Amino acid sequence: MNFKLLANSGKARVGQLITKYSTIETPVFMPVGTLGTVKGITKQDLYRLNFNIILSNTYHLMLRPGLDVIKKIGGLNKFMSWDKSILTDSGGFQVMSLGKSVEVDKNGVTFRSHIDGKLVRLDAEKAMDIQYHLGSTISMIFDECVAYPSSYINTKESLTRSIDWSRRSRLAYRERDGHGAFGIVQGGMYKDLRKLSVKENLESDFDGYAIGGLAVGEEQDQLISITSFTADLLPENKPRYLMGVGYPEDILKAVKSGIDMFDCVLPTRSGRTGLAFTSLGNVKIKNAKYAYDNSALDPNCNCIVCSNYSKAYLHHLVKSSEILGSVFLSYHNLCFYSDLMKKIRSAIKENNLNNLKV
Amino acid sequence: MNFKLLANSGKARVGQLITKYSTIETPVFMPVGTLGTVKGITKQDLYRLNFNIILSNTYHLMLRPGLDVIKKIGGLNKFMSWDKSILTDSGGFQVMSLGKSVEVDKNGVTFRSHIDGKLVRLDAEKAMDIQYHLGSTISMIFDECVAYPSSYINTKESLTRSIDWSRRSRLAYRERDGHGAFGIVQGGMYKDLRKLSVKENLESDFDGYAIGGLAVGEEQDQLISITSFTADLLPENKPRYLMGVGYPEDILKAVKSGIDMFDCVLPTRSGRTGLAFTSLGNVKIKNAKYAYDNSALDPNCNCIVCSNYSKAYLHHLVKSSEILGSVFLSYHNLCFYSDLMKKIRSAIKENNLNNLKV
Repeated sequence: MNFKLLANSGKARVGQLITKYSTIETPVFMPVGTLGTVKGITKQDLYRLNFNIILSNTYHLMLRPGLDVIKKIGGLNKFMSWDKSILTDSGGFQVMSLGKSVEVDKNGVTFRSHIDGKLVRLDAEKAMDIQYHLGSTISMIFDECVAYPSSYINTKESLTRSIDWSRRSRLAYRERDGHGAFGIVQGGMYKDLRKLSVKENLESDFDGYAIGGLAVGEEQDQLISITSFTADLLPENKPRYLMGVGYPEDILKAVKSGIDMFDCVLPTRSGRTGLAFTSLGNVKIKNAKYAYDNSALDPNCNCIVCSNYSKAYLHHLVKSSEILGSVFLSYHNLCFYSDLMKKIRSAIKENNLNNLKV
Repeated sequence: MNFKLLANSGKARVGQLITKYSTIETPVFMPVGTLGTVKGITKQDLYRLNFNIILSNTYHLMLRPGLDVIKKIGGLNKFMSWDKSILTDSGGFQVMSLGKSVEVDKNGVTFRSHIDGKLVRLDAEKAMDIQYHLGSTISMIFDECVAYPSSYINTKESLTRSIDWSRRSRLAYRERDGHGAFGIVQGGMYKDLRKLSVKENLESDFDGYAIGGLAVGEEQDQLISITSFTADLLPENKPRYLMGVGYPEDILKAVKSGIDMFDCVLPTRSGRTGLAFTSLGNVKIKNAKYAYDNSALDPNCNCIVCSNYSKAYLHHLVKSSEILGSVFLSYHNLCFYSDLMKKIRSAIKENNLNNLKV
């Protein structure tokens, strides 16, 4: 896996991440395909929207359809029929937030599946092994996420485990051409712990570094403050990924702090609940005022939805719980995010980022 | 509206129906877009599958989004952004099957909306007026459907009303270039009543004739017997439409009886519940035996779903209630129906219909 920087503007950077499957221009937004499908969006749509990396989830895939199925078919790319890059989350975050009766011990995590209640074990070696068999282009190390808020002592204890699991993940990771493993910086809202986590991560020399444990309920100021502090400690020549972020304005601020990669369920989940991101602000399409509105969802968007359908029609589809209501709004929102990242990259190249409004 | 016959094989016919919006080769299958959307299928998908006429429903559209909305936008074609033909059912069938507290009187029907319980009135003049404002390419006259089974005396009484409503519908229909109005033959399972209904319909000189009140629970033998009997009484030079049918084998038998047009929710509804029609028989994709099956849904189908995805992946999507599970199976099923009609038309042209297996 190869990463090179092409331009910068202040701390913001434009780069190119070249994997076995695609050449990814950064800053990049990765649509979330939790269960091996970006909800409601076909691969042809993703290509059309210029996405060539998506995120999927070890935790979800190990429970459904199960690793044995994906191994049998020959990996996640083949299973999904997706020939571009895939980054997989290691499962730590989902275990904490979705698993039932979660028990964390020194070596790993035991939990009950949120699907069928079966007892499941996950640890560093297993998380890396699953990601190996998924064929993940980018594997994330296995770590523990602390809840927000969390005391200093609890956060430090958790970080101690995460540091150990990260080292073990690095050892368990099997190198393959055009693939890579990313470390994850934890440490909650405590800068000295973030600094310690960076130091430990750097010793493992990962292909990229993620900042985890943010966008968990803290204020935007704190999100950006920790992001900026942490990004400053990370090496210039490796991609930096802010996990689970997020809102367009957070993405822009994080880019200005030197972040290269993002993922979030927001464009697709919002799409499914009738919320559209537009150049004129958010549109809650179920609102009665749109029932007779013959104008496009976003007059400044050229996507297939805005070029073909009125707000009145989209209002009708979403109010009637029609499948295409979810599909069309998810599609438009992903287009909005794709355009946003394109504008951000252009603004960095033109050294004009401070004039960009989102 | 223009209809011409191009070929025949026994009673089966190949024809061309030319409307303001499209040239439709018959026998044709019309996908159902009840609420102004073929569930889960975009217009680009419909074009790709060679559908250039769909069916929509007066009853559903008058309740949601309401006629005032569609009038404001300029008709159903504009509202849906669909530039091909639309046939609209007049609402009689849906009132009987979906309306609450339905009261039929000599002049029309009063019922409670299944959406919000509001009291609604529908009669011949209103049904035709709504279809006029929808801009329906083909308007269906307003009639009454009898339940199955129904006694001779009840069926006859109902037919008396339908005959009156049909005449009034004809008078209320406003002629427009490239548009048309179809009569509907009723009379339940009684051939003398069917004959009477045909006679009355012919006096109104419609642009086409539908056979209604079938596929309501009767045996296939009876369905085909009544269809064949009725089709024989209809004029050669007008399209014949068997409403709500149906299963591939029923379609083939009806074509052999001289039917030109079909509609049914089966391909899309089955798709949403995990049932696929294939050249090797029906596939219930949720069945556990498909979990590890790397083969295409239908090895003899070239659709985008069968060309890209395995049964294992489709099994996973449908089991996980993912949107694309519904979308992909609906798409494949519509492709199956489109191919079926193409094969039927070819077989008629080649005078080889009896060798066609479905």
